[in-house]
Amino acid sequence: MKTSPRILIIGGVAGGAACAARLRRLDEHAEIHIFDRGPYVSFANCGLPYFVGGVIEDERRLLVADAALFHERFRIDVHTRVEAVSINSAARTIEVRDLESGVTHTEPYDALVLSPGASPVRPPLPGIDLPGVFTLRTIPDSRAIKGWIEARQARKAVVVGGGFIGLEMAENLVHLGLDVTILEMLDQVMPPLDPEIAAMVEKHLREKGVSLALSDGVAGFATKPDGTLEVTTQSGRRHAADLMILAIGVRPETGLAKAAGLKIGERGGIAVDDQMRTSADHIWAVGDAVEVKDWTTGQPALVPLAGPAARQGRIAADAICGRSTRFRGVQGTAICGVFDLEVAATGASEKSLRRAAVEDYEKIYLHPNQHAGYFPGAQQMHLKVLFRKSDGRLLGAQGVGTDGVDRRIDVMAMTIQLGGTIYDLEEAELCYAPQFGGAKDAVNFAGMIAADVLRGDMPLVHWNEPEKPDTIFLDVREPEEFATGHAPQARNIPVGSLRARMAELPPDADLRVYCAVGQRGYLGTRILTQHGFSARNLSGGWTMASFLPPHV
Amino acid sequence: MKTSPRILIIGGVAGGAACAARLRRLDEHAEIHIFDRGPYVSFANCGLPYFVGGVIEDERRLLVADAALFHERFRIDVHTRVEAVSINSAARTIEVRDLESGVTHTEPYDALVLSPGASPVRPPLPGIDLPGVFTLRTIPDSRAIKGWIEARQARKAVVVGGGFIGLEMAENLVHLGLDVTILEMLDQVMPPLDPEIAAMVEKHLREKGVSLALSDGVAGFATKPDGTLEVTTQSGRRHAADLMILAIGVRPETGLAKAAGLKIGERGGIAVDDQMRTSADHIWAVGDAVEVKDWTTGQPALVPLAGPAARQGRIAADAICGRSTRFRGVQGTAICGVFDLEVAATGASEKSLRRAAVEDYEKIYLHPNQHAGYFPGAQQMHLKVLFRKSDGRLLGAQGVGTDGVDRRIDVMAMTIQLGGTIYDLEEAELCYAPQFGGAKDAVNFAGMIAADVLRGDMPLVHWNEPEKPDTIFLDVREPEEFATGHAPQARNIPVGSLRARMAELPPDADLRVYCAVGQRGYLGTRILTQHGFSARNLSGGWTMASFLPPHV
Repeated sequence: MKTSPRILIIGGVAGGAACAARLRRLDEHAEIHIFDRGPYVSFANCGLPYFVGGVIEDERRLLVADAALFHERFRIDVHTRVEAVSINSAARTIEVRDLESGVTHTEPYDALVLSPGASPVRPPLPGIDLPGVFTLRTIPDSRAIKGWIEARQARKAVVVGGGFIGLEMAENLVHLGLDVTILEMLDQVMPPLDPEIAAMVEKHLREKGVSLALSDGVAGFATKPDGTLEVTTQSGRRHAADLMILAIGVRPETGLAKAAGLKIGERGGIAVDDQMRTSADHIWAVGDAVEVKDWTTGQPALVPLAGPAARQGRIAADAICGRSTRFRGVQGTAICGVFDLEVAATGASEKSLRRAAVEDYEKIYLHPNQHAGYFPGAQQMHLKVLFRKSDGRLLGAQGVGTDGVDRRIDVMAMTIQLGGTIYDLEEAELCYAPQFGGAKDAVNFAGMIAADVLRGDMPLVHWNEPEKPDTIFLDVREPEEFATGHAPQARNIPVGSLRARMAELPPDADLRVYCAVGQRGYLGTRILTQHGFSARNLSGGWTMASFLPPHV
Repeated sequence: MKTSPRILIIGGVAGGAACAARLRRLDEHAEIHIFDRGPYVSFANCGLPYFVGGVIEDERRLLVADAALFHERFRIDVHTRVEAVSINSAARTIEVRDLESGVTHTEPYDALVLSPGASPVRPPLPGIDLPGVFTLRTIPDSRAIKGWIEARQARKAVVVGGGFIGLEMAENLVHLGLDVTILEMLDQVMPPLDPEIAAMVEKHLREKGVSLALSDGVAGFATKPDGTLEVTTQSGRRHAADLMILAIGVRPETGLAKAAGLKIGERGGIAVDDQMRTSADHIWAVGDAVEVKDWTTGQPALVPLAGPAARQGRIAADAICGRSTRFRGVQGTAICGVFDLEVAATGASEKSLRRAAVEDYEKIYLHPNQHAGYFPGAQQMHLKVLFRKSDGRLLGAQGVGTDGVDRRIDVMAMTIQLGGTIYDLEEAELCYAPQFGGAKDAVNFAGMIAADVLRGDMPLVHWNEPEKPDTIFLDVREPEEFATGHAPQARNIPVGSLRARMAELPPDADLRVYCAVGQRGYLGTRILTQHGFSARNLSGGWTMASFLPPHV
């Protein structure tokens, strides 16, 4: 690379903006240009649902950095409303078109960074282009949605797609006073989660008044005679609304890359190496448009998240400047606020393990408080933790709760990153004061329970494991708890009476012991197995039964 | 060990209680007894300051488990108000005294676990036993303090000791409407923190109306003619108050162990191996009374915290039952709520590194938000991160802020536990949505800044590094920021003008560049060094200057 390289960046949000700033810090003498076909660069796209909902009131807050700041502080030239129309990798030039004037011209480069992002999926369905059917990717998109709601005095909305953005939109529309229905083709919301954890989120959404229509895709949209919209589903149902939000995922913007002959990966994103180099010399790519390695399974993946995009932007800048930092892949840490809930995950899900044909794993459920139970405001959270049976290595975690889920998922994200085990969770020394945690933190409990399983102290059974002819569900809660609901045909012997009453149990039966969350169930299992019974603890206790029902 | 061993546990709080429950789960046939000289076992001692302050209203909430529960659920016999008076390790017996009847008798054991805890330090000062001079260790202690405040309509309190418990007591007394003065012999509060981080806490305490008298110890207490109390300090100052709280630390309760000839460690705690075995066969010890290994320095230490105590209790139970789990030592993770602040630390402090004569370290300061700046409620936190210069290994972290400090310190605690580096922090993939974090999380920023230092991209200078004759402080903030306060003789060139105005700077001067927090300072340093200047970034920016003042 020459001493004052000319570096062009296509796309100035997230990865592109991070790359540009890093390039300037590394090389004071480079000539750096950002081209973006939109009116803004470096805006907070993750904030758009909250801008629509009025949580973020001032649109200007979404503008993290503008062209003037890029120029003054970084001497980077930002060209907005300019679209890159083609790449000539042999000549090292791109052709760009000014969207105001329509004039095109050629820009030479020494290094080119593609950061075009991903665009919302808009399948070619009848009525998809009707006014009132929106997608949300840009500030003008959110302005249009806000304007439509105000102008029409909208009262009903259908959100198509129950992923993270769909749920954030649903919450924000409810916040504006709208009736919201979520239409989702899959049988669960939030696809990265396992279904029983997603079911907790679904329960919360329904409690907040959101209607959920799962396992049903869109067939088409129409405008009714009264001017309102109607969506027809594949099952033939109809949902009327004043506006529709399409949030059924995004697709990497690969048109430019494909036309230039760049290699596309098997999942459809731009293929890059671990320094974000594309298949063409002098061309890098970052962000939602590229295909990355799923760090937990080793599989190629599309992970359109801002964190990895920013990291990739830095790494591309490093590579362009001759440095050797490498992108380790994406482990899929994500969080979403859903009304009162924090919903977060990191690493592998059980679904992704099955997809990758991994059988060497076990899972546990637990429901610890976010802080000491004796301190006011203690709230239960729900965690699912996946780990390798053979060596205890932590594989993944998912959490749902009103407080403190982010913290526990972050600790487990770091554990996964560093190759730690559930024994490390057991030994973790984390922040404890009564308002901040427990002498045994939720993370410690996860480690202890998992270690009890792997050491053979706690034989485990899951609610969805088929019953045997001699299966007995043994509820070791107190009678008043039992009376509020229990497994069909369950027997109730409180754990405190178990030693005295174990003669009531057939000595060779398949005992499945449970309490509310698993702690008394564990003790009951210990008592019974040490007295020669074949007993297993029902993971997650009765709290999980409604989400992962027994085969009955 | 025989098949139904008789196991005695002296002290039924934290470690002792955890040990007892674990013993029962591991061995259904053991005979287990807990002896405690107090009226309660398994109570929430970490909650006592909040019970005094009325945050925890109901005393019963402090009782995590009572004797009836231990008996019913665990078949463990709890003997309260019974004191162990001696151990005969040769005969494997202890002598206990019933504190109600005064009767003593002998109890044989197969295994003995000492969990006597630590008692508040009460130096033999004049007046230390006057009514109104309190320590806080038990529920009766807190009742006495509450009763005294009510009965006397107390309006002023002096808290002697600025450690965690002292600060929690100060906050809770202010909460009750009292004027509070904290008297601390050291020149800072919260001894585990480095002084500049403690200074942030001190500033907050003063803002909350707490009077701080640092670097001054107690000489004695007296009752004044009007019935109020007065403390005289070593410097001769007097502070009047209606009550005094002594919170100057705790001392391991080793009397019983010493009398039995058990080995005591160099720091004064009961010496144990990594399975919590004392020097005597069949005797284990856990909790605040034992001496542990500081995991970061390898030095022996006394760390009276509930988390490690619980872990030790489990490990002693494992060892008694013939299992091989081991205690890895204590890394010193701790958190304290101080009014609106979360104050937390993990791993080594700079003080502890210096004490251990470690020179291979560097430190950075940063002031990131807890979540995206564009989302309402963003709050700055302050982090200090210590790492090895030679290989980037994370050594310790301290944090102060109103929100999210617990989470970042926990992530760094896990990183330290697993031997991770600042490069791992840089690459961490953590929870991000606008209300929960940033595309670059505070932890990522810490890693990036530290990595910039270690890779040589960001020459660093600290505010307390002595000036050279040619030192120039260069303030790269905007003029209106500069006007609000700046380093003496600093020159102000905003970073956006630096390229145009660098000719104003002498080419060979020792340039120390700063902005508000360090980000523009970093860019300014990059610009200057790439143009041949000798420039370094002042770590933590102007925000740190008032806490770690320049040598001027």
